[in-house]
Amino acid sequence: MKIQNDLLLRTIRGEKVERPPVWLMRQAGRILPQYRAVRASLSSFKELVANPELAAEVTIQPIDELGVDAAIIFSDILVIPEAMGLDYELVEKKGPVFPKVIQRKEDIDVLVTGEDAASRLGYVYEALECTIKELNGRVPLIGFSGAPWTLLAYMLEGSGSKTFSKAKKFLYQEPILAHQLLEKITHAIISYLTAKIKAGVDVVQIFDSWAGLLSPDQYRTFALPYIKTICQAIDEVPITVFSKGAWFILEDLKEVSCHTIGLDWTTSVEYARECLGDTKILQGNLDPCQLYAPHDRIKKEAENMIRAFGAGYIVNLGHGVYPDTPLDGVKAFVNHVKSFRY
Amino acid sequence: MKIQNDLLLRTIRGEKVERPPVWLMRQAGRILPQYRAVRASLSSFKELVANPELAAEVTIQPIDELGVDAAIIFSDILVIPEAMGLDYELVEKKGPVFPKVIQRKEDIDVLVTGEDAASRLGYVYEALECTIKELNGRVPLIGFSGAPWTLLAYMLEGSGSKTFSKAKKFLYQEPILAHQLLEKITHAIISYLTAKIKAGVDVVQIFDSWAGLLSPDQYRTFALPYIKTICQAIDEVPITVFSKGAWFILEDLKEVSCHTIGLDWTTSVEYARECLGDTKILQGNLDPCQLYAPHDRIKKEAENMIRAFGAGYIVNLGHGVYPDTPLDGVKAFVNHVKSFRY
Repeated sequence: MKIQNDLLLRTIRGEKVERPPVWLMRQAGRILPQYRAVRASLSSFKELVANPELAAEVTIQPIDELGVDAAIIFSDILVIPEAMGLDYELVEKKGPVFPKVIQRKEDIDVLVTGEDAASRLGYVYEALECTIKELNGRVPLIGFSGAPWTLLAYMLEGSGSKTFSKAKKFLYQEPILAHQLLEKITHAIISYLTAKIKAGVDVVQIFDSWAGLLSPDQYRTFALPYIKTICQAIDEVPITVFSKGAWFILEDLKEVSCHTIGLDWTTSVEYARECLGDTKILQGNLDPCQLYAPHDRIKKEAENMIRAFGAGYIVNLGHGVYPDTPLDGVKAFVNHVKSFRY
Repeated sequence: MKIQNDLLLRTIRGEKVERPPVWLMRQAGRILPQYRAVRASLSSFKELVANPELAAEVTIQPIDELGVDAAIIFSDILVIPEAMGLDYELVEKKGPVFPKVIQRKEDIDVLVTGEDAASRLGYVYEALECTIKELNGRVPLIGFSGAPWTLLAYMLEGSGSKTFSKAKKFLYQEPILAHQLLEKITHAIISYLTAKIKAGVDVVQIFDSWAGLLSPDQYRTFALPYIKTICQAIDEVPITVFSKGAWFILEDLKEVSCHTIGLDWTTSVEYARECLGDTKILQGNLDPCQLYAPHDRIKKEAENMIRAFGAGYIVNLGHGVYPDTPLDGVKAFVNHVKSFRY
């Protein structure tokens, strides 16, 4: 289908564009009253993720309400562990909880991977097809996956954690098993992203949310090689890699066959360009808390950011938008970016 | 009092030493059975902090049990907010909780600062005197304080948080009030550290535990100037600044009149030296999870780290030792460092 607003795709292809495209991580979510209304009609977040029509509906809400330049499918990175055979629950105010975690070889051996895992996620592909139909070519659609290390972290830790020390302990104590598990996760991710692309996504993003917890050595051992494998296997659409907090690995990401690198707000454009040169399109990186500021400050910071990044740049935050962000602040930000001209 | 093992002090003074000194953040704590026994006899952590004899006892335990080259007084960074008039509780499995948080000018105006705040912490100075007496000159004693931004973060947020978005929101919405509060905190810290030095500490360390949550601009506005003020005001003993996660500010720390910079495990010595040159002694930075590894790996990594850092270096972890770290792993680490010779 011909995309009407293809600013994101033209930017990723390195074409000269009139302004940077803008979208926000977690734009489909609690900042929107429309989302909260849909969510209130259901008993759980997972019910929404598993319902293709409703997932499509909330995916499109920010296109209508905020006018962003891309849609990102409403889903959860933890659908992969679940499809592999490791169930999780989402506990209010606590986040994900896995009743069973991976502890030994037998736990890894029984996990499903590849297409067998990916085929269990039919509801995601249906949601994508539904979204594409409803979007009707207005903007590109982004699909995503958690990165292998981040998914492994949850599968070992069993919940969110400030340190993920239980997961990291496993890397130090059982490196061979960790690699076996990472391979299985990677294989599942590749099949999953391939199916998403077949369903019609235009771009995929890999979220390595807990990248910043590993040392450079550990990241090079347990995280980066698997991201490389995924990027090599996927060549039908452009890929964005967002290794949150892993400033120390930016230079290595140059060698990964992805198109775009997501940055958090601790990383300056100068540092990023020093590491990456012009090899990658950059995406980010406003502090989500900046959107709590008065509108004139938001606009000023948006403009400073766009000028600092220069060409080859996609406007976003450095993390998902926080649920209590004032909607009018988000709109002031998006509208100001859209009024900018290079 | 003449210090018998003054390796830490000689290292900080830039003297040529036979091996790097070693101590561990949170060495006085749950890794030690002796500590757990003392703690079990009390109803709360705060009771232990407020009891000079027992605080001294647990401060000295790692000197006896681990043979580290420095003692660090057992205390809590949140004694300062409390002395300023903002009470907190320590809730099991949740961490600190402030029943009342700072929200407006009036909340700041009523806070006590300077010597009025510091004079409320007599139990800390007593604990120091007790410790010094019991230590009997075996090793130097380190005193510490939270950094202004980190203390402000708790006073605004009211508890620990993954994002401290409530605290950061205040910086963006009420910058003038934030500066007023930071000034009061800074003034209290200076009086507190001055009293600690009077009580006999040999070195002080400033912990900016939440440094990595701020953008470089915000750090330069709301954190760094106050750290500079503290370091300028304190010139009787050497100061260590540990801005956890704030890799992006390392170059700026060159201009701070401190002697030592603490590093976390995401920062390589190459990067640190690129930012700081030879202007500072470096301290750190083993991933605390490395101590879960088999002993031969621990020893190998300790040795690699010491060789990489070269001279002008204090061995430590990149964060406090995790409570469930095997004691024999900690001992293997400390002993291996102590057997090293340059």
